[in-house]
Amino acid sequence: MRNFKMIVEYDGTAYSGWQRQENGLTIQQALEEAIQLITGEKTVVIGSGRTDAGVHALNQVAHFKSNSALPANKIYRGVNSVLPPDIVVKKLEEVADNFHALRDVKSKVYIYKICNQPLSPALGRNYFWHVRQPLNILKMKKASKFLIGTHDFSCFCATGTDVKDRVRTILNINIDTIDDGFIEVKIESRGFLKYMVRNIIGTLVEVGHDKRKPEEMRKIIESKNRKIAGVTAPACGLFLKEVKY
Amino acid sequence: MRNFKMIVEYDGTAYSGWQRQENGLTIQQALEEAIQLITGEKTVVIGSGRTDAGVHALNQVAHFKSNSALPANKIYRGVNSVLPPDIVVKKLEEVADNFHALRDVKSKVYIYKICNQPLSPALGRNYFWHVRQPLNILKMKKASKFLIGTHDFSCFCATGTDVKDRVRTILNINIDTIDDGFIEVKIESRGFLKYMVRNIIGTLVEVGHDKRKPEEMRKIIESKNRKIAGVTAPACGLFLKEVKY
Repeated sequence: MRNFKMIVEYDGTAYSGWQRQENGLTIQQALEEAIQLITGEKTVVIGSGRTDAGVHALNQVAHFKSNSALPANKIYRGVNSVLPPDIVVKKLEEVADNFHALRDVKSKVYIYKICNQPLSPALGRNYFWHVRQPLNILKMKKASKFLIGTHDFSCFCATGTDVKDRVRTILNINIDTIDDGFIEVKIESRGFLKYMVRNIIGTLVEVGHDKRKPEEMRKIIESKNRKIAGVTAPACGLFLKEVKY
Repeated sequence: MRNFKMIVEYDGTAYSGWQRQENGLTIQQALEEAIQLITGEKTVVIGSGRTDAGVHALNQVAHFKSNSALPANKIYRGVNSVLPPDIVVKKLEEVADNFHALRDVKSKVYIYKICNQPLSPALGRNYFWHVRQPLNILKMKKASKFLIGTHDFSCFCATGTDVKDRVRTILNINIDTIDDGFIEVKIESRGFLKYMVRNIIGTLVEVGHDKRKPEEMRKIIESKNRKIAGVTAPACGLFLKEVKY
């Protein structure tokens, strides 16, 4: 079997997330169906991780195995020609047999976009979270420092998740103002729990609104209790930016 | 009657253009209904001009008359609270009785966004025209110079339009590459004919693909014949950027 690696960009607005499921179209299913149309084979596409419904990806990485004799660039062009326009395979190449898009991940980088101005823009509103009240970015930055390092992040893990080991290592967090009242939070971690980025963002926004002190972040982590942390930020502001191997 | 001026941003994707019509929801209708909900009066909203279905506006200007005793900022907040999220009134103020959003226009500025790279991005695809083949921007700039000034622009006017005077004055055209393979064309004119910007863009793209020489632009204008000019660029790349009074 040949092994193919893909880099995929998608607009998550219309999808029920990455992972194939009974109810609702997913990115994984759309990719598997496109590959099957081109290679004639049923296949399983394995991504670097799941993204939730409405979450976008600039560079999701995935792999699939195939017996197809088609050159990689024919599969690349064919798959793009049958995919819906909100999913694009940016790169497709044959790789060593042992490359595994999920198992081999070293770290992943997410960005989260917040529009921080009184009025929500009418344009592009599937691509940010509109936060009306002014945010104190300095306090958000201060709070974010407590997150860096290896911690049990149970406090930011979606309730009802059956993952037992909730220790993850956040390598870096950057918070920057970008053009026209937009704030971008960039988080790099060795791994993420379900809703972890969105729960971190929701909590940082509460710090930015002076509802919590930056130093509280330490206690929130120590509590290991989801109820102690802040709200879940909406999916539309979140983008999987990069997967490192 | 009091006279109110509005600056409106909208995402045209879901609308049948600006002007009220029997079939399909329009921006004008959505604004009129929102104002009626807040002031309790039926009203007519007059814009600086129409925009086609799918065309966006960053700063459309419009006015309406009202007997409402509500302060302008209450109308402003109320209207925004009932408008759909893809239409936002950015500013609403009471103005002199003789201000007329259409009649008083001095010039209007449109921008058109082209994504010029082999693959169309999956994200934001309601906000640009994807042009796959590389464009020669220098030639497009050269061609655009012929458009500046006062000309009969019949060649760029939608067929079947009953406007008789097709002389318009283009004040300025800028073509610039912006981030990540995007090209932005900015056109300022005293007035525009139906589809004029989109037909100019379609023709400039044919120049950029070496299908026409820049100098041909002069002959195209002189022909006054829509069939001699290029294709109509799609609506989604077009934004009404500014209206000057």
